[in-house]
Amino acid sequence: MLKKRLATAAIGIPLVCAAALWPGGLPAVVLVGAVLTLAFGEFAALCSAAGIPCRIWWGTAGIILLVIFAQARVPAPQWLPEAAIFLSWAFLIVETGRPDRKPVSAIGTTLMGVAWIGGLGSCLLMVRFWSPHHGAAFFGADGRPLLALLIIVWALDSAAFFAGRLFGRTKIAPSISPRKTVEGALGGFFAAAAAGILTAPMMGQSPADGAALGAAIGVAGQVGDLFESAVKRELGAKDSGASLPGHGGWLDRIDSLLFAAGVTAWWLMRA
Amino acid sequence: MLKKRLATAAIGIPLVCAAALWPGGLPAVVLVGAVLTLAFGEFAALCSAAGIPCRIWWGTAGIILLVIFAQARVPAPQWLPEAAIFLSWAFLIVETGRPDRKPVSAIGTTLMGVAWIGGLGSCLLMVRFWSPHHGAAFFGADGRPLLALLIIVWALDSAAFFAGRLFGRTKIAPSISPRKTVEGALGGFFAAAAAGILTAPMMGQSPADGAALGAAIGVAGQVGDLFESAVKRELGAKDSGASLPGHGGWLDRIDSLLFAAGVTAWWLMRA
Repeated sequence: MLKKRLATAAIGIPLVCAAALWPGGLPAVVLVGAVLTLAFGEFAALCSAAGIPCRIWWGTAGIILLVIFAQARVPAPQWLPEAAIFLSWAFLIVETGRPDRKPVSAIGTTLMGVAWIGGLGSCLLMVRFWSPHHGAAFFGADGRPLLALLIIVWALDSAAFFAGRLFGRTKIAPSISPRKTVEGALGGFFAAAAAGILTAPMMGQSPADGAALGAAIGVAGQVGDLFESAVKRELGAKDSGASLPGHGGWLDRIDSLLFAAGVTAWWLMRA
Repeated sequence: MLKKRLATAAIGIPLVCAAALWPGGLPAVVLVGAVLTLAFGEFAALCSAAGIPCRIWWGTAGIILLVIFAQARVPAPQWLPEAAIFLSWAFLIVETGRPDRKPVSAIGTTLMGVAWIGGLGSCLLMVRFWSPHHGAAFFGADGRPLLALLIIVWALDSAAFFAGRLFGRTKIAPSISPRKTVEGALGGFFAAAAAGILTAPMMGQSPADGAALGAAIGVAGQVGDLFESAVKRELGAKDSGASLPGHGGWLDRIDSLLFAAGVTAWWLMRA
């Protein structure tokens, strides 16, 4: 399992780094769009398997609109708000006419998945196109802030995993995620803060600000992980899928990144 | 039943007209905020009764933020986006820790109710504070556009009701709403278009634009009514409540107005 996990990482990490840093940002937009769509597909499949309706195509359309909105490679098209409004009306009308008559569950579940996976996930692109010198603009954006975020989250996930394996004794939330320990969580938290200091220059932050952002990611990422566990528990699943050998599914792989991206985008935009 | 319905209308209509037209708009903000909160409370109660979790207090907070955002009586406070972000994070964290472990259903249902009742309902305030001469600004707004919207929806609802009673023969959607007829729907549609022509000057529209807007409201309002029926069907309820003698609950009373407000706000803002 660990061997598979490392082998997947050895292939995946260079690809993701290249996509994050590639000049112009098109590979980052395509990769984020693809991964969020795959993760939402897993979520919709889990919901359907649990008997809760989730409309995969309406949700996918919503996620694509959010990705177009969040990227700053080209100006967001003028028709974007109208498309979002049109999509919402069409969804309401279609749900009114559907023979299964589940508008509350179907719209609710779909909205929840779009907000969680699409809303937080598209923050990855806000970070990608944010520039230390120009703020939320494309010009000057070079992908280093996104790479820094990925490094912090990888440090968090790996340190939590290995600290948990080596020192883990005290269960943190046995009813949600039976294998999480306080020792693993602390290891992840401090690794994220340390990675935040090391990557501070890539985000245009002072070392102190970098440590604070790393610590915030250290908390948010682990909450994101627990949140996904709670979702899987409600839907009666252990993994979100099996697409990534040793890592479970796409949603399992990005659960902490989603919350970390939301915190990082807010942190950078706020300044 | 009809007598009760007319008596409630005889008390309610003058109050609502006064609140819509009152200079400055404060009564409109308070009335819209109160009615949307009551309607969301009914929705949350129906969900809970049907065994679907819905978080009434988180949803109410979301609706209040939307009302503050949509009113233009005073500039929207600077902390509004931060409050929305903070509220969203707190909601995610609380749902992660809840012992019932229903994050998908609970967040989904709450989001759906906030988007439907709060998102469309706060469009009433966008219409209230829209001015034919100044667009989406407070200065110059006098409440006539909102009154015009109310008149069109009342014409729609009353004409659909009476045309259905007098001429109704062909069922329109027996599986959702057994008493709706094609004749009633057509009567409502034409009454809304006619009311749109008559109220066109109050919205700063040409008679032709008024007719088109009235016709759009004539469709949207009836879809809104069917949508609420589909929601009640999923949740196993006949009325959303019993607060308004002869009219059912608050949500029953505003179901067509919600969709009509969304269409009208989009129509006015778009120009």
